[in-house]
Amino acid sequence: MFPFAAPVRDLRFVLEELLEQRSLDLPGFEETSLDLIEAVLEEAARLASEVWAPLNASGDRQGCVRREDGGVTLPDGFAEAYRAYVEGGWNGIGVSQALGGQGLPEVVASSVQEMLHGANMALGLCPMLTAGAIEALAHHGNDDLKATYLPKLVEGTWTGTMNLTEPQAGSDLSRVRTRAVPEGDHYRLFGQKIFITWGEHDASENIIHLVLARKPDAPEGNKGISLFLVPKFLVDDDGSPGERNDVTCASIEHKLGIHGSPTCTLSFGEGDGAIGYLVGEEGRGLNHMFTMMNEARHKVGVQGIGVAERACQHAFAYALDRVQGKNPRAGDESTISHHLDVRRMLLSMRARTDALRALALFCAAELDVARHAEEATERKAAQARVDVLIPVVKAFSTDQAVDIASLGVQVHGGMGYIEETGAAQLLRDARIAPIYEGTNGIQALDLAGRKLQRDGGAALAGLIDDVEVTARALQEQEGLAVLGENLLAGAADLRSAMAIVLEQGSDSERGIDAIQAFATPFLGLAGHVLCAWQMGRAALKASVALAAGSREPFYRNKLAAADYALRQWLPVGRGNLRVIEAGMTSLADFDVAAH
Amino acid sequence: MFPFAAPVRDLRFVLEELLEQRSLDLPGFEETSLDLIEAVLEEAARLASEVWAPLNASGDRQGCVRREDGGVTLPDGFAEAYRAYVEGGWNGIGVSQALGGQGLPEVVASSVQEMLHGANMALGLCPMLTAGAIEALAHHGNDDLKATYLPKLVEGTWTGTMNLTEPQAGSDLSRVRTRAVPEGDHYRLFGQKIFITWGEHDASENIIHLVLARKPDAPEGNKGISLFLVPKFLVDDDGSPGERNDVTCASIEHKLGIHGSPTCTLSFGEGDGAIGYLVGEEGRGLNHMFTMMNEARHKVGVQGIGVAERACQHAFAYALDRVQGKNPRAGDESTISHHLDVRRMLLSMRARTDALRALALFCAAELDVARHAEEATERKAAQARVDVLIPVVKAFSTDQAVDIASLGVQVHGGMGYIEETGAAQLLRDARIAPIYEGTNGIQALDLAGRKLQRDGGAALAGLIDDVEVTARALQEQEGLAVLGENLLAGAADLRSAMAIVLEQGSDSERGIDAIQAFATPFLGLAGHVLCAWQMGRAALKASVALAAGSREPFYRNKLAAADYALRQWLPVGRGNLRVIEAGMTSLADFDVAAH
Repeated sequence: MFPFAAPVRDLRFVLEELLEQRSLDLPGFEETSLDLIEAVLEEAARLASEVWAPLNASGDRQGCVRREDGGVTLPDGFAEAYRAYVEGGWNGIGVSQALGGQGLPEVVASSVQEMLHGANMALGLCPMLTAGAIEALAHHGNDDLKATYLPKLVEGTWTGTMNLTEPQAGSDLSRVRTRAVPEGDHYRLFGQKIFITWGEHDASENIIHLVLARKPDAPEGNKGISLFLVPKFLVDDDGSPGERNDVTCASIEHKLGIHGSPTCTLSFGEGDGAIGYLVGEEGRGLNHMFTMMNEARHKVGVQGIGVAERACQHAFAYALDRVQGKNPRAGDESTISHHLDVRRMLLSMRARTDALRALALFCAAELDVARHAEEATERKAAQARVDVLIPVVKAFSTDQAVDIASLGVQVHGGMGYIEETGAAQLLRDARIAPIYEGTNGIQALDLAGRKLQRDGGAALAGLIDDVEVTARALQEQEGLAVLGENLLAGAADLRSAMAIVLEQGSDSERGIDAIQAFATPFLGLAGHVLCAWQMGRAALKASVALAAGSREPFYRNKLAAADYALRQWLPVGRGNLRVIEAGMTSLADFDVAAH
Repeated sequence: MFPFAAPVRDLRFVLEELLEQRSLDLPGFEETSLDLIEAVLEEAARLASEVWAPLNASGDRQGCVRREDGGVTLPDGFAEAYRAYVEGGWNGIGVSQALGGQGLPEVVASSVQEMLHGANMALGLCPMLTAGAIEALAHHGNDDLKATYLPKLVEGTWTGTMNLTEPQAGSDLSRVRTRAVPEGDHYRLFGQKIFITWGEHDASENIIHLVLARKPDAPEGNKGISLFLVPKFLVDDDGSPGERNDVTCASIEHKLGIHGSPTCTLSFGEGDGAIGYLVGEEGRGLNHMFTMMNEARHKVGVQGIGVAERACQHAFAYALDRVQGKNPRAGDESTISHHLDVRRMLLSMRARTDALRALALFCAAELDVARHAEEATERKAAQARVDVLIPVVKAFSTDQAVDIASLGVQVHGGMGYIEETGAAQLLRDARIAPIYEGTNGIQALDLAGRKLQRDGGAALAGLIDDVEVTARALQEQEGLAVLGENLLAGAADLRSAMAIVLEQGSDSERGIDAIQAFATPFLGLAGHVLCAWQMGRAALKASVALAAGSREPFYRNKLAAADYALRQWLPVGRGNLRVIEAGMTSLADFDVAAH
């Protein structure tokens, strides 16, 4: 087990050099200085590395236990580590000051999240879900609900959950059956929800469940679904948790990974019904939930990057320590880091993690613009980019994170398969991220379907324009021209693929099938091109720093990573255009049942 | 948890149609009829599906336990299931009749292995290791050793192990330190071996360890290593197990998967020394071990395919059962198998599993020719192909198996992450296969280095010629021309890549680095092209059957799988040529330590 060092240097490179601190120029961040951000990153790094990270392996081994009394016991130290996070004021850093948070830019909040997930993904899920609850309440809750619940949620002394899934309703939430029966100013909820992350635990004073349910007279399908707030403890008039509500943890799941995160089946209304309050408008529950889903999806992408970063660190540490084989450059006592086949794995892990991080933070910066820019047109344009980028950040980052964690296992050889080494846990933990918060297939459909079709690809086309600007800048830079050519070719491929998806996707008869068939390769192509773009930008910045006389190996390594990303990673991803060009005949012809 | 159905129909398609039963025409198989093979497959399928498969999940949950007395308790039912295998005579089916086996062709033995690994990979490892011991003894043991140990090993009443790894000697076996001190007609061994698969258990009467060790006066490095046979129980004059030898199980590993397979640390000579016998020549231990490693590597590839097949079956069963979303073709109660994005995953899993199986059995057929053909030149040519194919079968099949098992998890959505579903176990189990029996990096080096450089690529060039023959046949077939074009392009890429690897790999100064840098993408390209070739052949056979009036959906699905393999899978794999063309500058420049 190697220690985790929160990647402050890499995060600063993205925030300060790649993004040129653009979030700080926005209205509302006048008092947010670079010094402040650096202090925040350093302090978060300490919490991540020193408090959260040491519990990652023990939390995995110990897991969560549902007690006879229906409560859930967390792994040793988790409740304390969560409280240290709350006491440090971390839960509110990205929340606006109007709601009681610190109102730091999203790029900073995302950076902190990445460190915490890298340190301990299972624990990081708790505040991730709370953030979703805050978002939904802040946007859709009435003043009473906001006054009662938001301050505690923003502090983190109360935590939040998202109750969507039921046994028959997963990706297809229109099948939700949980009932909400009106009773005076509130409702009584009856039903069962599954896969509720951090659905029950003792680390906070109260748990605020946001629940999708139907009124008895509600129509079938999406339009009958409303959103309800159901607290674990009903809140007394003085604002403190009082009587226990009728929601209980029926069981917890035995999962492949994130053992330190209790995944609960929650029963609502085994007695008189769980008291709940309508959030927002009746029949608009799914829309309200998606408000928070969009940002939660960004956070899941960031989570994948955190785990990928930790996988890199483990693999590098092992490769620098393990003596095996001989290498002409290193002699008899070569560590495996000298063998180029091992170095290929390390560089692949590093280059991809860097690229994913840069893209996720680019998206976070667009989120900052979308929220804070002076001009409405600027905000709108940024939001359009965010809408396109989020499914890519979520799905591409998490698919890649699984692959990076798997490569991390491989670097360790036989030791990688032994649980005590810690590399295998990262693979097990990472594997959930392509599934939850909308499977990666759902993300791809969101991109190739809704997001692309509604604006005819305008937002993505704008991003591709920017990719080409970077490509041409690379072409003009000595030593980087070939990177520019590769990037330009990638951009052209993405444009071609977009044209196919737009044209065939809008077909009234076969459009749905076309989008389904092309969505995943299209998202894969977009992910490769956009990530390669970010590494192209990193190469430009690194060569500026080197030309200015920097001797930091950091910049030379960024050039190597960019070279890898643009010349060894992107070309494989470009194959996705061929996949789309091949059409969907084989998919349509394939007889699954006769298999 | 879905039941496992051994894939007899698919195996028969490969044996009878793709391979045209060519093994049966070889000398020595005169009495092996097609009817006999079909009966063998059906009987093995019964053992796999009915006896081994039901223990797969319980074996994973229960795992192995090292007892206080140093013994290892297997999961419930494993010893009985192994004995059922022995009593059915399965252990000797691929062993020559001269050694007491049934001497069936390797294509049949491999087919049976695939079914058993698909049913229960952890249990399948036991006979896999025994087969290695049989191979090493049969080739290198003296008559006494053969007489004493072979019959029981061939029966399976005794099992075998391979003792290579030590803490400081993994991929680099030249660092082996275990000592073998001569004493009369035998040796006393002292040392510790790790990662010994099925190193201790009670399912057999005796365990025969094959151990790499050094005599006290042996030179450093590879040339000082000899191979020794160390039985768990010394064998009495009457041939029965007698006194316990000085070899003990010090511990067993806590692993990511294959929990039903005890992975042991073995201590040799904690007392007076473990009595062992020299196998083959002094100082030739590594060579002797590689005799059996080569075939063991083929078996690991087959193992990966077995697990991939099971992952397919789980995913298909789930997708055909799970109602979610609406599809224009299937209405309100659509199972997810109707959504083309899900179907893409299913077809990808199926097409790749089919392709890997066909290539592994093609290699097995070449093994049959290499062993049995009348003419020495024919045997030699076949062996040259086997030598090139084995690293591809091992590495490509197992990398793909991990990915297929991971996609299987994805098809299940949230249920895939729950251990009880069974999909996650397949991913955990599969993940060892790219690591053991020589990591996949080592396989790639073997292909791009030793195998390619020693004959200047002649054997692989011959295979590419055959690929092109298939491609041209496809081009002439109505409806398949585009598959032919794709395959031809893939063949051309592989030829170009080979030229680069041969040229740069032979450079006296940078050759080692070039091979290290290019090995993995080269193996990836070769794997894609050779697998696509097999699917091209499958398409030709399927269209013959359909033209002859067959109405089996089986053949239409083979066409869909071939279309997928050649037009959606191969194009992505072809990106590996671009990776090689990009050269190794970024790898060489990357400063791992400064990371």
